[in-house]
Amino acid sequence: MKATQFFISTLKDAPADAEVVSHKLMMRAGFIKRLGAGIYNYMPMGLRVIRKVENIIREEMNRAGAVELLMPVVQPAELWQETGRFEKMGPELLRVKDRHGRDFIIQPTSEEVVTDIARQELRSYRQLPKNFYHIQTKFRDERRPRFGVMRGREFTMKDAYSFDRDAESAGRSYDAMFQAYCRIFDRMGLQYRAVAADTGAIGGDRSHEFQVIADTGEDAIIYCPTSDYAANIELAEALAPQGARPSATQSMAKVPTPGKSTCEDVAALLGLPLTQTVKSLVLAADETDDSGAVIKSQIWLLLVRGDHDLNEVKAGKIEGLKNGWRFATAGEIVEHFGCKPGYLGPIGLKGVKIVADRTVAQMADFVCGANEADFHLSGVNWGCDLPEPDLVADIRNVVAGDLSPDGKGVLAIQRGIEVGHVFYLGTKYSKAMNATFLDENGKPALMEMGCFGIGVTRTVAAAIEQGHDARGIIWPDAIAPFTVVLCPIGMDRSAEVKTAAETLYAELQALGVDVLLDDRGERPGAMFADWELIGVPHRVVLSDRGLKEGQVEYQGRRDEAATKLALADVVAHLKARLKA
Amino acid sequence: MKATQFFISTLKDAPADAEVVSHKLMMRAGFIKRLGAGIYNYMPMGLRVIRKVENIIREEMNRAGAVELLMPVVQPAELWQETGRFEKMGPELLRVKDRHGRDFIIQPTSEEVVTDIARQELRSYRQLPKNFYHIQTKFRDERRPRFGVMRGREFTMKDAYSFDRDAESAGRSYDAMFQAYCRIFDRMGLQYRAVAADTGAIGGDRSHEFQVIADTGEDAIIYCPTSDYAANIELAEALAPQGARPSATQSMAKVPTPGKSTCEDVAALLGLPLTQTVKSLVLAADETDDSGAVIKSQIWLLLVRGDHDLNEVKAGKIEGLKNGWRFATAGEIVEHFGCKPGYLGPIGLKGVKIVADRTVAQMADFVCGANEADFHLSGVNWGCDLPEPDLVADIRNVVAGDLSPDGKGVLAIQRGIEVGHVFYLGTKYSKAMNATFLDENGKPALMEMGCFGIGVTRTVAAAIEQGHDARGIIWPDAIAPFTVVLCPIGMDRSAEVKTAAETLYAELQALGVDVLLDDRGERPGAMFADWELIGVPHRVVLSDRGLKEGQVEYQGRRDEAATKLALADVVAHLKARLKA
Repeated sequence: MKATQFFISTLKDAPADAEVVSHKLMMRAGFIKRLGAGIYNYMPMGLRVIRKVENIIREEMNRAGAVELLMPVVQPAELWQETGRFEKMGPELLRVKDRHGRDFIIQPTSEEVVTDIARQELRSYRQLPKNFYHIQTKFRDERRPRFGVMRGREFTMKDAYSFDRDAESAGRSYDAMFQAYCRIFDRMGLQYRAVAADTGAIGGDRSHEFQVIADTGEDAIIYCPTSDYAANIELAEALAPQGARPSATQSMAKVPTPGKSTCEDVAALLGLPLTQTVKSLVLAADETDDSGAVIKSQIWLLLVRGDHDLNEVKAGKIEGLKNGWRFATAGEIVEHFGCKPGYLGPIGLKGVKIVADRTVAQMADFVCGANEADFHLSGVNWGCDLPEPDLVADIRNVVAGDLSPDGKGVLAIQRGIEVGHVFYLGTKYSKAMNATFLDENGKPALMEMGCFGIGVTRTVAAAIEQGHDARGIIWPDAIAPFTVVLCPIGMDRSAEVKTAAETLYAELQALGVDVLLDDRGERPGAMFADWELIGVPHRVVLSDRGLKEGQVEYQGRRDEAATKLALADVVAHLKARLKA
Repeated sequence: MKATQFFISTLKDAPADAEVVSHKLMMRAGFIKRLGAGIYNYMPMGLRVIRKVENIIREEMNRAGAVELLMPVVQPAELWQETGRFEKMGPELLRVKDRHGRDFIIQPTSEEVVTDIARQELRSYRQLPKNFYHIQTKFRDERRPRFGVMRGREFTMKDAYSFDRDAESAGRSYDAMFQAYCRIFDRMGLQYRAVAADTGAIGGDRSHEFQVIADTGEDAIIYCPTSDYAANIELAEALAPQGARPSATQSMAKVPTPGKSTCEDVAALLGLPLTQTVKSLVLAADETDDSGAVIKSQIWLLLVRGDHDLNEVKAGKIEGLKNGWRFATAGEIVEHFGCKPGYLGPIGLKGVKIVADRTVAQMADFVCGANEADFHLSGVNWGCDLPEPDLVADIRNVVAGDLSPDGKGVLAIQRGIEVGHVFYLGTKYSKAMNATFLDENGKPALMEMGCFGIGVTRTVAAAIEQGHDARGIIWPDAIAPFTVVLCPIGMDRSAEVKTAAETLYAELQALGVDVLLDDRGERPGAMFADWELIGVPHRVVLSDRGLKEGQVEYQGRRDEAATKLALADVVAHLKARLKA
């Protein structure tokens, strides 16, 4: 490609609303152009990256035996009503009526449509397993779209759906996709981690997020540097502290803590470590009648150590909270604790179920609220000042330094951006939509399903979050908009520069290298700044002065400085660099 | 590709709602699957054809210097309000409100968005000309979607938009796209014709439809077999008959024609040729005040020969009808003609403007209505029984046998399916949206635009309308889902067949041939029927019996019978066939 036949549009400054670095750089480098909140034009330079990402995904999906089709953007509501999602999903599902007043949705995902295809097309066990995927435009009407294409409303996703005869076969489909995802992100040249994730109501252990490592990532990735354990924070298990609970050494005492309603403040006031305090969280679980009216609400007190955070997903797995919970209202708290929030504790309660985190259950001589405004209790001990808790459970987020659940080390935390997800669905959708096949005995059986997504446009943004510096983007070769840029200086004045540049350009093109010749006639400074911002990984500068000595300058995007190369050697040099 | 790794789903019968052959065959061959009215899943086999069509388009657009980007499916209403199309367009424009109640549309076309990009990005004459295109999902909420993807609601289109500094440069952009379109449809192996089309309010002669020739086409293509004249029926000019008007030979007479209200019936009753009769069409043009209320309606009588049809587009170009017209109501007709429709004529009218088609103006001794129920007038002559008409104009559709407007022969008509359109827009959108650039003198000037569309999914259907027989589809090589299919008979029983098939498959793949190996183990009859239905252009059958003599059978999809070939020659034979 020659620059004058392409479209290059860079900006000195990012727009004020761009908060994250990928958004800023995609806007500045002319990859995207805002059309509305969370809706972007993919400009020519950005589209090249998207296409390269799509092609790698497509090749690896095909290699893994998945079959590409294309399901529509506008989908009839009927199928979404079969699974109940038309009603259940919130306003992020964009609903639209056609000219005849019929309901449609703009697809955010395609489980319903693909299951409808499967129940019609896959009639026999002989046709299974089958994996259908598409790469399609999706829309999710985010309440607050932001971060550019990282959390946009219209975006491109690859979503695959596997259909199997039984759970064992579904497991093999899952594994095949897991391996395909590894190859995809390997080929893209991204640093990533596959982390175990929560499976919610589906159960089992077959859910992994593919997280691109980036300091700016929204998600916490929990991993063990000395083993292959990795999970997201929702799932990562916090083990009980090793050893038995220490013996009590103090007597319980009521201490005035006026205005100190947080564990931090109380610890500071009493001169104790925060790890000596216990945080009280009050939840409620509503029991409803058939009409949905609340009959009764059970109040729960969940206790975590002062320096720990409640893990709401884990809380939701407690028997009694499984079918839904909410934080208690101020009124309910006063009714059951006789006290406003900030001074709550587990002592002297009636009808409140008490759950202690594993760590809390191992504490002695701890501090908690006295259920009286401006007072706490110190030196509190289980079995002594209060009965053992109703339940001991893992209800907190892990922290760095916790023991790894696999017993092979200590946990560390890094930040990541979720770009892919592999998930075993079981019969959730096949059951709702009666997607059956005939087994060897001619009996109908529900198909076992898996779903496997990759955010195409999100991957582009994540790659930038991972690869950038003060000058701009640093693309891995495989997904750069161009692999090599040739920057001739004074091409319009010097026939020698022009000839050398055109010749090199033709040679690289003939080798199949995705090369751009910058024939715009920009001054060197502006030209170099553009390509550093755009992030092309390999740059060759041709100048009159250099060519007089038969030399050009090569600089990799991560290199500190340029290297002089003989013009005759530059193709071989690039070939070697591109292979590496 | 091996069949067992792909997805093949053929049907014996087409669904009842499939009216046209392309719809029937696409359903039967498993190319598409209906999801809702005018909304289809593109199944794996169909998607392969779509991708091949897209790739040819993309390569030729790039070659012609156009630059690919991607504009969103969901577009904010604001831009559509700038051009007034948000209000003006009918219910075929699918409107949707987001969660905040803001108006959006699902794009049927992207003039507004691309003009918005251009007015922000193209600031100087130095950046012009520029041509942006995308290949994107579109939605048009047709009142009565039908004919499968031929007239679907969701479909894929390539649309390109050119931006030029002046009309002359815009003409060059137009020519470049015209040439690119010829290359595109040539490469696809389709028989097509570029026909001149009406430019409506834009004016000028820069509008061409690309029509794929097919007997089943909706459109009439007018062309001259002895010259390069071609136009659509809206535009094709009907010249005046050669020579002077014949002299009158009859006197006008009132003849009873009870119940005979059509020219055909009257001609039959009177024993005259239909070409001796004149048809009366009554139009009205409303004059409105600023509020849009009708102040006055001018009644027009348009006369065409009994065997001719009114051309409504041509009627709309008459001074006085340019700003809009409608057919007169029954009430207006009775008021101005004193008679019900069926017996109307040009004699004895007051305040009615009379337009005679060029052919009618040359007629003598003609028959027309008497403006009295159940009576016509015969032997009517201009200048004798009634004054010369207020206006003589070309207001009819041409018919086969008419003189070609270029004077080089006689017109013929064939049927076509419009798959592409190149159109010079002028400053219609740049003016509405104030899309200006700075010219050499630093003065802002409006950009001259062109728009260039190809219906991707429609082209697929049109190719089938052009290429099919009783057994199924006949694809041109370039856009076939697979170019070659290998059909081994008894591959599971015979090691020799299996080895030969696998070897040939690998050889063809290594040559870059898009080959499918049918390893499903179907019986020969079912296997052949599938591939004839699907329309793969080249088939090689491998059997135990043939291989014993070192032979395989080759059959082109259009061939009457198979040809025996030495196994050793089959690659060379296919290479020769594929090049041709």
